[in-house]
Amino acid sequence: MSCDFLALAQPGVQKLSPYVPGKPVDELARELGLDPAGIVKLASNENPLGPSPKVVEAIRGELAELTRYPDGNGFALKSRLAERYGVTPQQVTLGNGSNDILELVARAYLAPGFNAVFSEHAFAVYPIATQAAGAQGKVVPAKDFGHDLAAMLAAIDADTRVVFIANPNNPTGTWFGPQALSDFLAAVPERVLVVLDEAYIEYAEGGELPDGLDYLARYPNLLVSRTFSKAYGLAALRIGYAISSAQIADVLNRVRQPFNVNSLALAAACAALDDTEYLAKSRQLNDAGMAQLEAGCRALGLGWIASKGNFIAIDFARDTTAINQALLREGVIVRPVAGYGMPNYLRVSIGLPEENARFLKALAKVLGA
Amino acid sequence: MSCDFLALAQPGVQKLSPYVPGKPVDELARELGLDPAGIVKLASNENPLGPSPKVVEAIRGELAELTRYPDGNGFALKSRLAERYGVTPQQVTLGNGSNDILELVARAYLAPGFNAVFSEHAFAVYPIATQAAGAQGKVVPAKDFGHDLAAMLAAIDADTRVVFIANPNNPTGTWFGPQALSDFLAAVPERVLVVLDEAYIEYAEGGELPDGLDYLARYPNLLVSRTFSKAYGLAALRIGYAISSAQIADVLNRVRQPFNVNSLALAAACAALDDTEYLAKSRQLNDAGMAQLEAGCRALGLGWIASKGNFIAIDFARDTTAINQALLREGVIVRPVAGYGMPNYLRVSIGLPEENARFLKALAKVLGA
Repeated sequence: MSCDFLALAQPGVQKLSPYVPGKPVDELARELGLDPAGIVKLASNENPLGPSPKVVEAIRGELAELTRYPDGNGFALKSRLAERYGVTPQQVTLGNGSNDILELVARAYLAPGFNAVFSEHAFAVYPIATQAAGAQGKVVPAKDFGHDLAAMLAAIDADTRVVFIANPNNPTGTWFGPQALSDFLAAVPERVLVVLDEAYIEYAEGGELPDGLDYLARYPNLLVSRTFSKAYGLAALRIGYAISSAQIADVLNRVRQPFNVNSLALAAACAALDDTEYLAKSRQLNDAGMAQLEAGCRALGLGWIASKGNFIAIDFARDTTAINQALLREGVIVRPVAGYGMPNYLRVSIGLPEENARFLKALAKVLGA
Repeated sequence: MSCDFLALAQPGVQKLSPYVPGKPVDELARELGLDPAGIVKLASNENPLGPSPKVVEAIRGELAELTRYPDGNGFALKSRLAERYGVTPQQVTLGNGSNDILELVARAYLAPGFNAVFSEHAFAVYPIATQAAGAQGKVVPAKDFGHDLAAMLAAIDADTRVVFIANPNNPTGTWFGPQALSDFLAAVPERVLVVLDEAYIEYAEGGELPDGLDYLARYPNLLVSRTFSKAYGLAALRIGYAISSAQIADVLNRVRQPFNVNSLALAAACAALDDTEYLAKSRQLNDAGMAQLEAGCRALGLGWIASKGNFIAIDFARDTTAINQALLREGVIVRPVAGYGMPNYLRVSIGLPEENARFLKALAKVLGA
């Protein structure tokens, strides 16, 4: 008789349900016997543009060095980010995706007896990382699917160490403006770390959304988390970063694995930062695709949540399990969000014009329209 | 006045000293104004052979998919590993390097009130991961620089959850045989997880060392950790794995980040597993280089610790700080191991024949021989 190594795991770990990612194309192809080439995946908020040629070139330039460890301090990328954003390299923490940043925060600042505040319908990694650290997640009901910042403020108590907020939010696409952020930051106790997750900010910049970095100098308890996985198109490589006070960055850098970011990601991110053309094209494609999907929904009589991300949550006004299954049989992968408390919605990533059209056509067929 | 976010961090985290990696070539070049091309780095136990052409080809084949997330389940690589080693894919956990595996174990099974047992002069990540989890590290004095397995057994108490052992051990290169492992595993309480770190096993296979995988069926509390960073030459990409019972793998897979391993690493590792020629060549180069360095040490009147790894710890019989500094000025980077309780030793990775010669020449100069 062997021991029960689930029961021996830490209590927070025992209750963890793993994050459910978008279904990979190969997996659907295997399951349904479909041709992978004919499948459209609009499930993981990936950049449909394909990789930047400058990024590909930068990676090719690194291939001779595969046997060498990465620069664990990420000197070149931190310097570039610091220069770009007017901060010091000591304020930058690099992560194996921004997922890593969120977990570093949880491991550094959360533990049994403490809690983290986040919104209903917010990114699944906030509750997962909180629970893995053995802390309590305080979920604040959303307002019109977006963050109710006043209610989140009210939820902060003596045991709160971290507040996770996302702007825009995933999977809803909702956002808040500069005044709302200012008011929130001014009212949060200074001992509470505010993690402002801006994974999708590049799709919304220059509009109604604040730039979190503008608030760093005034609020030493603010950490801005960003990623190269979305508008920069590097999801495969796992690279994200945080900008914060140098003290918080020092703590996170102690917790992170010494070589948490791989060499190709470091080189690719440097190249991606310089490729302003790719970024502009991504944004443009996204704006056009969003309009296309909104028009398609309108034509089908469907509602949706207005979104500033590279995705849109469509309202089917009934449980979407069967609709999702039917779309899969049509070779179209979107994301069910019942796990986010939104059983009547499907989240659809903005694809290429032809992918969006393919989705809308499959949807019309599935709905019998 | 802002809050002290170091004091707000978890106690185990506050006391963390980050892992000190081998000095990167670029960093030394910047510091001393040297030409990076003229610097020899024998500090990080990297494979000097350069990348496998088959690996490079596999990576090139993935570049079109950079904007897509990796397969979070690592289906293809887990299947290959399972097939190769006669286990099920459910017994495999993939890590962002085997460093990730070690941390997953610590986060799943360690916490304040528990302890982990490991040897003096063992890999620095054991104490770091233990402390980051808030647990106590019980360091057992080494015997002739190797693991004293009987003493480690005696150190296990009611609060011990994990024992970390390495075979061969880094940074000493010491090893133990099949009988020693058998006796140890038979005596360890079944509720204690034994992590057998075989990062360097490919350099020692078929000789006096046991294959940890042979013991898995009999000991459900055994986890074997391996890496693609050494003999397989993929340090830049960050990819390692654990093989254990399916239950332990399930727990670790709950704790790991959903996309902890990047796509290029997954593809590269599959190709590396198939490239038996590269592996054989790595081993051959290492055997020859070890003989070359041993002969060089003998000629210089220096002692060393017999090693089954891709590195050798050289005994200078006095503090090596000044010798290391002098070697750096000669453009040769090796690894000081004072942090491992070995101030009189320098650890030197086996390089190409000309790199080994360059090191020995610089060493002779530095020692005034």
